[in-house]
Amino acid sequence: MKAISILGSTGSIGCNTLKVIEHLQDFRVVAMAAGRNMSRFARQIAEFQPELVSCDDETCAEILEGELSALGAKTPRIELNSNGLVEVATHPEAEIVMSATVGAVGFVPTLRAIEAGKRVALANKETLVMAGELMTAAAEKSGAEILPVDSEHNAIHQCLRGERRAEVSRLILTASGGPFRAKSKEEIENATLEEALDHPNWKMGDKISIDSATLMNKGLEVIEAKWLFGFDADHISVIVHPQSIVHSMVEMVDASIIAQMGVTDMRHAIQYALTYPVRRENCTPTLDLSQLKQLTFEEPDLDRFPCLDLAYRALKAGGTMPAVLNAANETAVQAFLDGKIKLSEIAQINEGVMNEHETQYGADLETILTVDRDARASASKLLSANVSSAAISN
Amino acid sequence: MKAISILGSTGSIGCNTLKVIEHLQDFRVVAMAAGRNMSRFARQIAEFQPELVSCDDETCAEILEGELSALGAKTPRIELNSNGLVEVATHPEAEIVMSATVGAVGFVPTLRAIEAGKRVALANKETLVMAGELMTAAAEKSGAEILPVDSEHNAIHQCLRGERRAEVSRLILTASGGPFRAKSKEEIENATLEEALDHPNWKMGDKISIDSATLMNKGLEVIEAKWLFGFDADHISVIVHPQSIVHSMVEMVDASIIAQMGVTDMRHAIQYALTYPVRRENCTPTLDLSQLKQLTFEEPDLDRFPCLDLAYRALKAGGTMPAVLNAANETAVQAFLDGKIKLSEIAQINEGVMNEHETQYGADLETILTVDRDARASASKLLSANVSSAAISN
Repeated sequence: MKAISILGSTGSIGCNTLKVIEHLQDFRVVAMAAGRNMSRFARQIAEFQPELVSCDDETCAEILEGELSALGAKTPRIELNSNGLVEVATHPEAEIVMSATVGAVGFVPTLRAIEAGKRVALANKETLVMAGELMTAAAEKSGAEILPVDSEHNAIHQCLRGERRAEVSRLILTASGGPFRAKSKEEIENATLEEALDHPNWKMGDKISIDSATLMNKGLEVIEAKWLFGFDADHISVIVHPQSIVHSMVEMVDASIIAQMGVTDMRHAIQYALTYPVRRENCTPTLDLSQLKQLTFEEPDLDRFPCLDLAYRALKAGGTMPAVLNAANETAVQAFLDGKIKLSEIAQINEGVMNEHETQYGADLETILTVDRDARASASKLLSANVSSAAISN
Repeated sequence: MKAISILGSTGSIGCNTLKVIEHLQDFRVVAMAAGRNMSRFARQIAEFQPELVSCDDETCAEILEGELSALGAKTPRIELNSNGLVEVATHPEAEIVMSATVGAVGFVPTLRAIEAGKRVALANKETLVMAGELMTAAAEKSGAEILPVDSEHNAIHQCLRGERRAEVSRLILTASGGPFRAKSKEEIENATLEEALDHPNWKMGDKISIDSATLMNKGLEVIEAKWLFGFDADHISVIVHPQSIVHSMVEMVDASIIAQMGVTDMRHAIQYALTYPVRRENCTPTLDLSQLKQLTFEEPDLDRFPCLDLAYRALKAGGTMPAVLNAANETAVQAFLDGKIKLSEIAQINEGVMNEHETQYGADLETILTVDRDARASASKLLSANVSSAAISN
């Protein structure tokens, strides 16, 4: 039995991770952390019986204890907030840590898991975007393996098996193009929240669904790919592939393209990350290519999707700039989810915050956390200005 | 400088092999064999200056000497016919042998190259179809590597890099579907030679073009795949993919599909076979997926293309049956090329010869050669009966 900790167990990746664990049968959950969905968390705890759990605060913990006793389940040790996340991430028995919280909150616990030499199954892309250099340096030092759970990076990881880095000419990330792939600039500008959340192929959380609609998600993945695989911006490209069947590709120096394909089901990548280097019988359906009929590809349009361009700019600037973009984007996406700004204004806020930032290089953890806080403050300031000017113009 | 021998230098694969050698610059041709195109052969000899060459007979040798002296080129040592082919295949300096003759003629020289422990770049699929067991046993004994040059098997070889055999659930060979993919049974039956030779994606020799039109080529590839990669008929499938961009795929037990893609240019697979395990800068263009627009897939139709079904039947019967199918098919295809039978009659001849044959197991070289001769005789007999009955019905 392999021991695993899960950060973000009640989210989309967390729930699928538990399904994979049920399927594999030889993993046991020693620790789990969730944010606020205590009713689902209680059911998970009752089923998987971790020794340690963590939730946001005292209020959540009380609700959780109530839910657990209603289920007749034993209450495990409960820790709170960021300290609790770190405890879960570094649980001494855990060999593997699934890092599946959304946004910057997973950053420090994931770093601690890496420092502790755990295998980290990484679904939280913000972590590498904020501090790829720090993370990869820590992994090198501790010997921790980072296995990507994003379907694109997981695909690239698979395509690179048996290949030499020096013989790779380019990573090619596929992008579904999101719900606005075929929409005009005006339609995107005036998109409703409902339209933006309606991803054509993947069922995901709100934040990542909005990032998919703006292609910021793909931009963050470009940055993530740099740190996972060690290629610079000029050697990572993006192609729009609306069917999301080819999860990503690698082009070799001899012009060969190796691609990984499969159904759109996150459980595949999760299982791969948990069982690597072994491949195990999957719980997901196999792909029937003849039922699929066709696969199409097109260049991404940076004019309609400026967030992708911003991500390349941040990656090329390097240093703290990707962390700044990530922080600005989290703030702006939340504002869009709260109905405060238009979809197209997310890119404007991101660009505004980036323009104000002076890139720092070789940043340590403290610097990154400061930069992250400052960028959020800067984004909030732009948002207030934006909201007031919108109020005036109305 | 790596030394290479080429069997079949004036054919399509042979000419492309010489282009790749020109591109790579660190290979030298020590021996070459060609059949009857002495004018092209002379130009190749003048350029690559092999120590030894081989051609069909005395008449060819005389023509060759004339052509060489007209070019002002030195005449190398000349050997003749099957003996000459074996001399070329086992040239003591050759580290790599490109086996690119068409049909059964390449069988013995390729076997000798394998026995001599050379790396064999195998474009002659009939070799493995006739005597896969013998060939693979010889390779195991001598330590010879067999590197496939067929784009499909080459693709599978690439997809299997870094994968464990036990974790592969299925090889998926792609088939363009040939010129009659979308034609009715009647249209296929009455196809002209010109229509049958008009392959949509690949420029190839006559024999393989006809085999592509009947899907026998794909059937032979299924048998070839068995011997190259060690999977049985139930674990090798065929999917029609008209664009020939995905050269083939491997499905893993975890439902992941790894695919190899590229432009339709044989030089890629040739170079891969020569330089493996290293990948070198390719002389072929890179694939621009966004220009490609779409990839489609469909199930092969065994009713319109019975030759594919016959190949599966031969593979499942095992023993000498694939050799019999191969011999019958070579004879029948030649009869079609000579205008003696209809395209649809190729499958009928093949099936008739297979029905008459009693499968032998554990056959040695002599037995296989006898079976091959007998099957050709049997096919010729069926052809004469067929031609006479056609004459009567006219």
